[in-house]
Amino acid sequence: MSTKLWGGRFQEESEGWVNEFGASIRFDQLMADEDVMGSLAHVKMLQKTGILSESDSQQIIAGLEEIQQDIHTNKIQFSTDNEDIHMNIESILTERIGAVAGKLHTGRSRNDQVATDFHLYLKVRLPKIIQAIEAVQTTLVKLAEENVETVMPGYTHLQHAQPISYGHYLMAYYQMLKRDKERFTFNEQHTDILPLGSAALAGTTFPIDRQFVASELGFDSVYANSLDAVSDRDFVLEFLSNASILMMHLSRLCEEISMWVSYEFSYLELSDAFTTGSSIMPQKKNPDMAELIRGKSGRVFGHLMGLLATMKSLPLAYNKDLQEDKEGTFDTVKTILPALKVLNGMLKSLKVNKARMQAAVENDYSNATELADYLTTKGIPFREAHKIVGELVYEAIEGQQNLQDFPLTKFQEIDATIDETVYEILDPVTAVRRRQSEGGTGFDQVIQQIQQAKTELSK
Amino acid sequence: MSTKLWGGRFQEESEGWVNEFGASIRFDQLMADEDVMGSLAHVKMLQKTGILSESDSQQIIAGLEEIQQDIHTNKIQFSTDNEDIHMNIESILTERIGAVAGKLHTGRSRNDQVATDFHLYLKVRLPKIIQAIEAVQTTLVKLAEENVETVMPGYTHLQHAQPISYGHYLMAYYQMLKRDKERFTFNEQHTDILPLGSAALAGTTFPIDRQFVASELGFDSVYANSLDAVSDRDFVLEFLSNASILMMHLSRLCEEISMWVSYEFSYLELSDAFTTGSSIMPQKKNPDMAELIRGKSGRVFGHLMGLLATMKSLPLAYNKDLQEDKEGTFDTVKTILPALKVLNGMLKSLKVNKARMQAAVENDYSNATELADYLTTKGIPFREAHKIVGELVYEAIEGQQNLQDFPLTKFQEIDATIDETVYEILDPVTAVRRRQSEGGTGFDQVIQQIQQAKTELSK
Amino acid sequence: MSTKLWGGRFQEESEGWVNEFGASIRFDQLMADEDVMGSLAHVKMLQKTGILSESDSQQIIAGLEEIQQDIHTNKIQFSTDNEDIHMNIESILTERIGAVAGKLHTGRSRNDQVATDFHLYLKVRLPKIIQAIEAVQTTLVKLAEENVETVMPGYTHLQHAQPISYGHYLMAYYQMLKRDKERFTFNEQHTDILPLGSAALAGTTFPIDRQFVASELGFDSVYANSLDAVSDRDFVLEFLSNASILMMHLSRLCEEISMWVSYEFSYLELSDAFTTGSSIMPQKKNPDMAELIRGKSGRVFGHLMGLLATMKSLPLAYNKDLQEDKEGTFDTVKTILPALKVLNGMLKSLKVNKARMQAAVENDYSNATELADYLTTKGIPFREAHKIVGELVYEAIEGQQNLQDFPLTKFQEIDATIDETVYEILDPVTAVRRRQSEGGTGFDQVIQQIQQAKTELSK
Amino acid sequence: MSTKLWGGRFQEESEGWVNEFGASIRFDQLMADEDVMGSLAHVKMLQKTGILSESDSQQIIAGLEEIQQDIHTNKIQFSTDNEDIHMNIESILTERIGAVAGKLHTGRSRNDQVATDFHLYLKVRLPKIIQAIEAVQTTLVKLAEENVETVMPGYTHLQHAQPISYGHYLMAYYQMLKRDKERFTFNEQHTDILPLGSAALAGTTFPIDRQFVASELGFDSVYANSLDAVSDRDFVLEFLSNASILMMHLSRLCEEISMWVSYEFSYLELSDAFTTGSSIMPQKKNPDMAELIRGKSGRVFGHLMGLLATMKSLPLAYNKDLQEDKEGTFDTVKTILPALKVLNGMLKSLKVNKARMQAAVENDYSNATELADYLTTKGIPFREAHKIVGELVYEAIEGQQNLQDFPLTKFQEIDATIDETVYEILDPVTAVRRRQSEGGTGFDQVIQQIQQAKTELSK
Repeated sequence: MSTKLWGGRFQEESEGWVNEFGASIRFDQLMADEDVMGSLAHVKMLQKTGILSESDSQQIIAGLEEIQQDIHTNKIQFSTDNEDIHMNIESILTERIGAVAGKLHTGRSRNDQVATDFHLYLKVRLPKIIQAIEAVQTTLVKLAEENVETVMPGYTHLQHAQPISYGHYLMAYYQMLKRDKERFTFNEQHTDILPLGSAALAGTTFPIDRQFVASELGFDSVYANSLDAVSDRDFVLEFLSNASILMMHLSRLCEEISMWVSYEFSYLELSDAFTTGSSIMPQKKNPDMAELIRGKSGRVFGHLMGLLATMKSLPLAYNKDLQEDKEGTFDTVKTILPALKVLNGMLKSLKVNKARMQAAVENDYSNATELADYLTTKGIPFREAHKIVGELVYEAIEGQQNLQDFPLTKFQEIDATIDETVYEILDPVTAVRRRQSEGGTGFDQVIQQIQQAKTELSK
Repeated sequence: MSTKLWGGRFQEESEGWVNEFGASIRFDQLMADEDVMGSLAHVKMLQKTGILSESDSQQIIAGLEEIQQDIHTNKIQFSTDNEDIHMNIESILTERIGAVAGKLHTGRSRNDQVATDFHLYLKVRLPKIIQAIEAVQTTLVKLAEENVETVMPGYTHLQHAQPISYGHYLMAYYQMLKRDKERFTFNEQHTDILPLGSAALAGTTFPIDRQFVASELGFDSVYANSLDAVSDRDFVLEFLSNASILMMHLSRLCEEISMWVSYEFSYLELSDAFTTGSSIMPQKKNPDMAELIRGKSGRVFGHLMGLLATMKSLPLAYNKDLQEDKEGTFDTVKTILPALKVLNGMLKSLKVNKARMQAAVENDYSNATELADYLTTKGIPFREAHKIVGELVYEAIEGQQNLQDFPLTKFQEIDATIDETVYEILDPVTAVRRRQSEGGTGFDQVIQQIQQAKTELSK
Repeated sequence: MSTKLWGGRFQEESEGWVNEFGASIRFDQLMADEDVMGSLAHVKMLQKTGILSESDSQQIIAGLEEIQQDIHTNKIQFSTDNEDIHMNIESILTERIGAVAGKLHTGRSRNDQVATDFHLYLKVRLPKIIQAIEAVQTTLVKLAEENVETVMPGYTHLQHAQPISYGHYLMAYYQMLKRDKERFTFNEQHTDILPLGSAALAGTTFPIDRQFVASELGFDSVYANSLDAVSDRDFVLEFLSNASILMMHLSRLCEEISMWVSYEFSYLELSDAFTTGSSIMPQKKNPDMAELIRGKSGRVFGHLMGLLATMKSLPLAYNKDLQEDKEGTFDTVKTILPALKVLNGMLKSLKVNKARMQAAVENDYSNATELADYLTTKGIPFREAHKIVGELVYEAIEGQQNLQDFPLTKFQEIDATIDETVYEILDPVTAVRRRQSEGGTGFDQVIQQIQQAKTELSK
Repeated sequence: MSTKLWGGRFQEESEGWVNEFGASIRFDQLMADEDVMGSLAHVKMLQKTGILSESDSQQIIAGLEEIQQDIHTNKIQFSTDNEDIHMNIESILTERIGAVAGKLHTGRSRNDQVATDFHLYLKVRLPKIIQAIEAVQTTLVKLAEENVETVMPGYTHLQHAQPISYGHYLMAYYQMLKRDKERFTFNEQHTDILPLGSAALAGTTFPIDRQFVASELGFDSVYANSLDAVSDRDFVLEFLSNASILMMHLSRLCEEISMWVSYEFSYLELSDAFTTGSSIMPQKKNPDMAELIRGKSGRVFGHLMGLLATMKSLPLAYNKDLQEDKEGTFDTVKTILPALKVLNGMLKSLKVNKARMQAAVENDYSNATELADYLTTKGIPFREAHKIVGELVYEAIEGQQNLQDFPLTKFQEIDATIDETVYEILDPVTAVRRRQSEGGTGFDQVIQQIQQAKTELSK
């Protein structure tokens, strides 16, 4: 007969390779700590409600606490024979305290147990992720503060569009990360619900006290429906989706870093500590870390897609397919936390080539909008002003000139009242300074954004 | 020279097929209404701030309002020559009111205009989606109320696990939809931010009043950073992600409906109005609508994945790639609204075969947990009780009996104090009734869930 | 009673909005031609085998041919009342030729009919896609031929790595497209199998002749298993996967085009006809088409992912979920054909700024590998040579020099036998010319690649 | 100064956590064997071409062979300090044989080295995957052979459609796997191309002999373009796509297994060795393995999606993002090989409940098509026959009868010439037997399919 803890009705034993295929212990041992925490809260409740005697409970508690210690000091070896972290720990407990260990599983099931462990797992990580995001935000704000008046080309379609403040650019990423933070904070809401006490799917006949367990484990509330409790992975999908959006943001920033450290842009220089060399080309200094963060967005998207596909048409309640929820999630945590940390280090040690940035707006046509806007103040409808300036730009390109190189008379052909002030208008620094619309790149606006950010971060 | 509104510096004209590839008018005309709304708010602001004269503004307003009327009555034909909805409307306005139309675009750009239209588009649809979800919730609660005491097998691994209340099962979906609603409500937060006034990417030198525009259009706030405002599609990704999770839920329910109307289950019957026949097999009555809802989850996942991939490493600010944000989103709205409506109709006209459900738990072993739990009240550790019952089940299967068919003496071999009450314990209805743990399937618990749901829905 | 063609056993009628949700006529009318082709072959077979009389068959054939004409001249209006293209056409046929139309569906089902239409649809498009790929390949080869000796920086990590021939770069894309072509050619193999004659799922009792139908429609073979025939969408998934890889290639090329037309790179200039302007910035000339091709890769990936998710755990045989196979596929065809055409036009009208490319390799350190390789000819192990040159590069950067600016004595400190030839080695054109390893960037190698490509294309 | 092998120009050292983020040694050590194989072939070529002296080469060969032995006996510890498998092995080689080890990297780069290793990795695995598929095919054929005359309901829309042979059903999966095999075989074509000799991206100035290396490593051909060689991951995307389609097939089969072992269907029984129990419900026997195979399709889809997204807009040639190609691929190999093996074991030990299958077609209306087809032989157009039978089915359902329960007179009302043979027509076994169309479920047809399959498998 089967030697499995659940093996009562089984006559045949599976072979090792079959067990290995089904086992999750290889990865779910990452939740060993959460599993013991959950069991401790459960047994305390069993004692409190009188379902277990004080003596039984105390033996189990002592056994679990010892296991907890051993987990913290890496003294425990888990085994594929016991499938998963839950069976492993129950099995170790049995070895240590004997048959009374068998009373721990009273009034619960692996279905609510694994869900509880997984909620706990994310509940502990979400604040760390939020902190890591805030660390990057803090660096961005600091860098922005140093670069309020660093003028550079603003791009659309990767073409010079209008001159902007580099500080303004950095604050755009601050804003993205702010929304990321809000999403992970919202994510906490659906993570902070306790499934334990739902048992296999239907609740239990034992007079358990779920509120007590919730309070022991620091959960906000308990699932209102036991079937939902064991079937629900919304909190995980929310997490993977939030992580995907975060990685998309980081990927955009890293794409720009990778481009801006190129020979052609040379706007930024990364410190040696965040670059690597080539095995063949001695001169290479590669922005590997930026590329890797960018590249790693793919895997996070993949984990999201994978879990959506896996859950797509699963009937309620637990199905073994749900075991697939973990590896992608663990890997996502293991991806985004270091990605944020590495990005932060990269940004902190960044050298900004301000001269190069400024030079880039002095020899282009990114001041064309200034001129068009200026013409509208002379009563020319914007659409017509746009057309006139478009033609001037074409003429300038043909003549290998900039707009500011045209003589005043050239401008006066358009409108006789145009005077010398037009040249000030065409200056890129003026162009940035004058963009004082709310949220615009004008220096004063950028300073206000920075002030606001500091207030937000200091909360 | 180019005849395009932006064509000042262009000497060559694109051919039709190239224009067509780049044009978005085929699909973005869906935002015609939003585009005019945005323009109206913009021109009112231009007048209020004195950027445009009252007379110019009034002409433009009158022209736009006429166009708005014509849109509502489907009188307008859009053209690929004008690329997108924004250029189409400006072009029609110019035809109607002449060169003054060219003043409308003062202080804005297509980049902030398209972002504004898209925010408005979702801002209007999100409440409708939330309502459609609530309609399904209401039906679920009503159906649950009629089926509190309808006993059926609860499944895990699609195997009979423990008997549950069908009402309890329905309330599990109520809970999923409740979280969906919370997600779409959170989604409103990042949708309800106004990009207009960010112009191309840098803000503008015109003394615009973004708060006025926000208030005209009913937006909560304005984007704090102009570069972020035109580059951000987080609100869309949130939407696609929320829609994916919603569709995953509906797909699970529809998988079960499709299974439960099968010959083998026969738990449910769909009304003719929500089924279809076969072109070849005269007897067929296919749950097409349920299958289609299930199948349509794939396309929504695909739209999410597509946009994540598209945005992955785009530099700031606007790039033409972003044009790809719309079709998938429009299609998602067009998918989930009818999916919810059709599902609601299907549920409303559902026939529940209570007898068949009940019969299914009277000839299975889903009462085994009851027996194991009962044994623990005799002092047997749960793990041992589980083993004993596992062996009994095996014996029963071999003898083609149910557990309740064993004589009392059989049970007394396990524990001498077992008496006739064991048979009551083994009754599936008792099994359900007694699961009174919080959130469990016990009838009283289900009634409480229903009460709570009604309170929530009446808000 | 139901008025549907399959409505015999139905008592209730669905409402319009339910029908509309289930109907596919909105999109599957794209296969109208294929549907009639399939029906014509089917009825000819019914006549040939004597299942239908000659007179019945001839009436049906005449009716179908008339409908075919009307489809070609866009004279037919389809209706949602008739669900899909198959029911629409049968219904029109019935209107036109009366009850005898009802004999057309003898020995077939919509399940094998829709599969046949879809196979035909792709069977017709695959060669067009292969041709469109070849057209781009031809342009690449022509451009490569003009640029064999155009020297530019080769990049890894977007850093200057080693100088290469621009022609060599272009031929890399030729190779990618060659593999794409091979994939679509392989795709034809699983497309070119006829499902018709599989009926609903089980074959039929009528003495049909599937080989005759296959030959009429130009199919290579017939499905060996009727259940597989109606359930299989492998040929579609292969197509979506091949299209995804193709779009990934185009996306890489378009990323580079978009970067290389930037102010900073200025390696390429696109013709006006393949760029667009800005609504606000008069100077802009945006590589919209390149960006859009890049952006559209996302939607194709999404369609692949969507269909995989949809099919994931469908039981055999036909389920309504399979209706979701079409829209994504049609959209993919509608995406990749114009993308290839637009790309081709863009490449044909490309201006290559050879001087700018060459200049970029004369002021960088991309000749460092040359020096390291040269040192190994003096007996220094490569790894040590790499280290020595790495230090020289560092010194050069500090001194704002290039390697070729060092005096000969500097080099002789490394190895006394180094002479003036070192400066020739350091010349970028020499560096390219000397890379004569098979498949390398040496001019002769590139010429050989081009010759080989011409031979391949002329087949 | 940096201690890295490529560290010549670097002044700062990265911290451990940064190195760890960038390092791939954690996973790419899986290619240790391939890396040494590649190096051995490379050094043999360097000797043959005279680039290295015989004495240098022989030292390196001896060192590499020793390392190879140590890898096979798991004696080597790799270190994160050396980033990846390539640097680890070079570093170990240097420790063992001294500075001469530095000559190994002559004329190659990590870019072509890693690509070569990865090609070799898949080149070795693809035949194993094809074998594992064939093993499942063999089992399916054997099972089909035992079940040619096992009659069961054929389903569409999960509704009884028409009776079929269970053997026929099994052969449908045989066909799917046949296409899978063809796809993996095609995949070999683009895997079997050697990148080595492309060096960093441009080829090399050393007089290397790529054909020699190809022949040493058993490659069919060499890449025609060095830039393409180091940038190409088509062979990996093909693999992930093929694996996704394979997993979709297995997922469909496992969905059906999971359904068919349910209480409601009871068509199949899995052996204890391929099922597991419940921690709480003693009676449970869960089809865990089938569910897990089904669930694991999600992760494979995710890996495909992840790599597509990662590669989407990467400029040529190598970028660090490409490092992300491996983990998903390794995991896919580690998923599909055991999935196929476990499925095979499951199928081999399957119990088929033939009586239950047959019973299911004797009390349903899956013989309705037979009747309709029969009516057409009386000259009634199929569409009308369909309608008549549909009404009969409705009447039968209302009267809780089967079609075969109607008296002959009932049928004669439809057509006076109908006689007793109608009852034979209505018999499900007859229905199956008579479906003799090519590829149909008729027993003779199934036997032919099986013969054909055996011929294919014996090749």
